[in-house]
Amino acid sequence: MAHVTIIGTGNMGQAIAALAAKGGHSVQALAHTDTGEAVTGELVVLAVPYAALTDIAAQRAEQLAGRVVVDITNPVDFETFDSLVVPADGSAAVELAAALPQSRVLKAFNTNFAATLASGTVGDVPTTVLVAGDDAQAKALLVDVVTSGGVRALDAGSLKRARELEAVGFLQLTLAAGEKIAWTAGLAVVS
Amino acid sequence: MAHVTIIGTGNMGQAIAALAAKGGHSVQALAHTDTGEAVTGELVVLAVPYAALTDIAAQRAEQLAGRVVVDITNPVDFETFDSLVVPADGSAAVELAAALPQSRVLKAFNTNFAATLASGTVGDVPTTVLVAGDDAQAKALLVDVVTSGGVRALDAGSLKRARELEAVGFLQLTLAAGEKIAWTAGLAVVS
Repeated sequence: MAHVTIIGTGNMGQAIAALAAKGGHSVQALAHTDTGEAVTGELVVLAVPYAALTDIAAQRAEQLAGRVVVDITNPVDFETFDSLVVPADGSAAVELAAALPQSRVLKAFNTNFAATLASGTVGDVPTTVLVAGDDAQAKALLVDVVTSGGVRALDAGSLKRARELEAVGFLQLTLAAGEKIAWTAGLAVVS
Repeated sequence: MAHVTIIGTGNMGQAIAALAAKGGHSVQALAHTDTGEAVTGELVVLAVPYAALTDIAAQRAEQLAGRVVVDITNPVDFETFDSLVVPADGSAAVELAAALPQSRVLKAFNTNFAATLASGTVGDVPTTVLVAGDDAQAKALLVDVVTSGGVRALDAGSLKRARELEAVGFLQLTLAAGEKIAWTAGLAVVS
């Protein structure tokens, strides 16, 4: 069993914490503002908005060294809702990996709405968590946590693929915000 | 009923031609090499590889003026299979629109494998064609052709969203090439 720290207590943080607990893993749940509390998890999920990543990386870089750190953000420009705020050829995850050179950074959960993690389904289709990263062992750890909680997970390739995962997350957000799909639905992975 | 020209006789061209015919639309099927034959369709689908778009735009720009032109390409760098060959903040569709300023260019079908257009399902999930473009009337025409053939279609926003559709198409290709999903499956839209 893994020990998982979730930073962020919003819908996504709660859903991921519940998923990890359901799989029998121990969970440390921290608010973004609990900066005084040390991270204890070997797997650390940053369930915070994109704008909060810089502070967390600055405050906790040493603590996060050697750990697997999961970026779940969709770095959407919420003023225009027409682009991302990261460089077009990059991603929030690649930026985070540069800020945390001693951590093994993964991208995951950004293509899953919270409701689909909680229910285990996208509409009637089983939910799949897409995971990108450069460290196979780190990906295997996260895949195990997700699948032991009853949700599918799929290795989507290297951390460079976070660019595509963030495009999927952005597209899905625009479709839901435009009421073209439900927040309980989305782009489902059918294998 | 619409009159549809399909340029390109590969798997995708055949599947889109069959879909249009099934919906009762008349179809002109041209090979990419049939440069001497004039396009007659009000809706023209360029079912060719990305590399062929430049030639088609150069040869047929005048003929395509006033028509709705659909780009279905995934401009993947097939040497590395690790990025797209278009600018990271752009798309093949936006490039095509610049080369065909008198046409109404749409992006569509690039997130659908040919088999899922032919069967109407992504695994067990109904196939949805995502359509991006700046002209509402043009999008409505394509949506009508697709849905009258028994396949769902969804307006995915402005032509700028072709960047995200091409990222989805690229991700889906990497997953299928890596044998993580089947060529009869993929990322399905669940509404």
